[in-house]
Amino acid sequence: MKVGIIGLGLIGGSIALKLKEVNKNISIYGFDKNNQSLDFSLKNKIIDKVFDPKSSLDFDYLFLAVPVESIKNQLNSILNRIPKKTLVIDLGSTKYEICKSVKNHNKRKNFLAAHPIAGTEFSGPVAAKKDLFDKKVMILCETEMTSSTLLSGAIEIFKNLGMSIKTMDSIAHDKHIAYVSHLSHISSFMLGKTVMDKEDDEQTIYDMAGSGFESTVRLAKSSPEMWSSIFIENKINIIESLEEYILNINNFKKMIESSDQDNLNTEMKKINGIKEILKGIN
Amino acid sequence: MKVGIIGLGLIGGSIALKLKEVNKNISIYGFDKNNQSLDFSLKNKIIDKVFDPKSSLDFDYLFLAVPVESIKNQLNSILNRIPKKTLVIDLGSTKYEICKSVKNHNKRKNFLAAHPIAGTEFSGPVAAKKDLFDKKVMILCETEMTSSTLLSGAIEIFKNLGMSIKTMDSIAHDKHIAYVSHLSHISSFMLGKTVMDKEDDEQTIYDMAGSGFESTVRLAKSSPEMWSSIFIENKINIIESLEEYILNINNFKKMIESSDQDNLNTEMKKINGIKEILKGIN
Repeated sequence: MKVGIIGLGLIGGSIALKLKEVNKNISIYGFDKNNQSLDFSLKNKIIDKVFDPKSSLDFDYLFLAVPVESIKNQLNSILNRIPKKTLVIDLGSTKYEICKSVKNHNKRKNFLAAHPIAGTEFSGPVAAKKDLFDKKVMILCETEMTSSTLLSGAIEIFKNLGMSIKTMDSIAHDKHIAYVSHLSHISSFMLGKTVMDKEDDEQTIYDMAGSGFESTVRLAKSSPEMWSSIFIENKINIIESLEEYILNINNFKKMIESSDQDNLNTEMKKINGIKEILKGIN
Repeated sequence: MKVGIIGLGLIGGSIALKLKEVNKNISIYGFDKNNQSLDFSLKNKIIDKVFDPKSSLDFDYLFLAVPVESIKNQLNSILNRIPKKTLVIDLGSTKYEICKSVKNHNKRKNFLAAHPIAGTEFSGPVAAKKDLFDKKVMILCETEMTSSTLLSGAIEIFKNLGMSIKTMDSIAHDKHIAYVSHLSHISSFMLGKTVMDKEDDEQTIYDMAGSGFESTVRLAKSSPEMWSSIFIENKINIIESLEEYILNINNFKKMIESSDQDNLNTEMKKINGIKEILKGIN
């Protein structure tokens, strides 16, 4: 099997590592516009060879593990140039705009829109790990537009990565993911900003921050390039989620202002229900 | 040594467990208004005996590990009834109002205001663990108001719990802690609320939420009674922090609305600096 991966960050690097573990006969070709990432991936045998995405794309599977904006920019041109046998799989965190951009492409059936619900706050191939996808969910969108033969092969690969598969349409995907993932990142980045702006003395943060702050602000370590691209791509859903978030904070603030302990307790007790929901997340 | 603990939750229970480990000659008397917590603590030998806080308070150290409002309500009456040798130590997350409430008490020197920067999102004696305070910071406020002999004894105890000591005045404590701890809890509770309100189908949250959401929403599992009390007690600082947080979110939202990728990247790159600060937190 011949696999190409464009984008050797956390996701691209981790897929390469795991694919090499589960397939004896595999050659992994990698590309990253960052030369350091490319050299690191080659030196550390995350990939076998380097390829140029502007030349031949003779792969069985070609993964796009770059920021969503960059996926959208190059997907049409890539589909123009692949042979019939190739399945191009994008791994971006938004799906609607990407699917729309190739909706009428004559090789649409050679494309699969996928979103692995897996990641850490770290980035680059140095953060790659082969068990990143273990027991995680892979969301596939608009699968009816992909060739069923190519789709079966991809599902087989995702299962080999240790993942379970869910399918949904791309509009629903982007709406839900805005709440369940993108909003967390913004709330965390803004928490980090608010504390850093206020506490110009880092020692105070050291001394007074406990594991609670650390956990809530963890995502503020995430890659700016990756996330600015996602926020802009999914802006309609994200803005809606932010408006609801701000509304909720303002209502909660009013309860604090009026020392309304009963309603604060009732509200927080309801939210405590997240405990049961979180038990289902690895 | 004879120690009393009012409030056998995560903090009170964990102190009991560690004190028993490091002191051979110690008797720990416990009280909790929740009978289940009291029975659990006795059965599991977290405490040695039960005591009634309305009767004799003949202890060397008496810890108050209850919600901050409850500390304020009973502190005067407790100081009225302790013998000269006793040091009363409160462990609440706010310090100014508590210190103010006993500022002119004739046994003020028998009181020490303390805040252990340690905790988890779990509560009750079932969550207690003897290493909770290991390598954590104990913040002491207005120590000049406490008898130096009693203070030395307390510091010895905190060191035995594995903690390092920082001192600050209670106004500064409450201001900083609003940003570094209380704000995290509200941002996390509100994230939980926003997602739960939107996603009435829990399966969607299961499927689409990754470890990032889990980490950011972790504090939304915290005890409502403990936190409503803190939010009201420290409302002036918390409201200030919430207003700055909302302002930051609104500015960030505007950048998303106008697809201002450059400023989004610049902003997030700055916030990424939290990485270095977090390295100092256990």
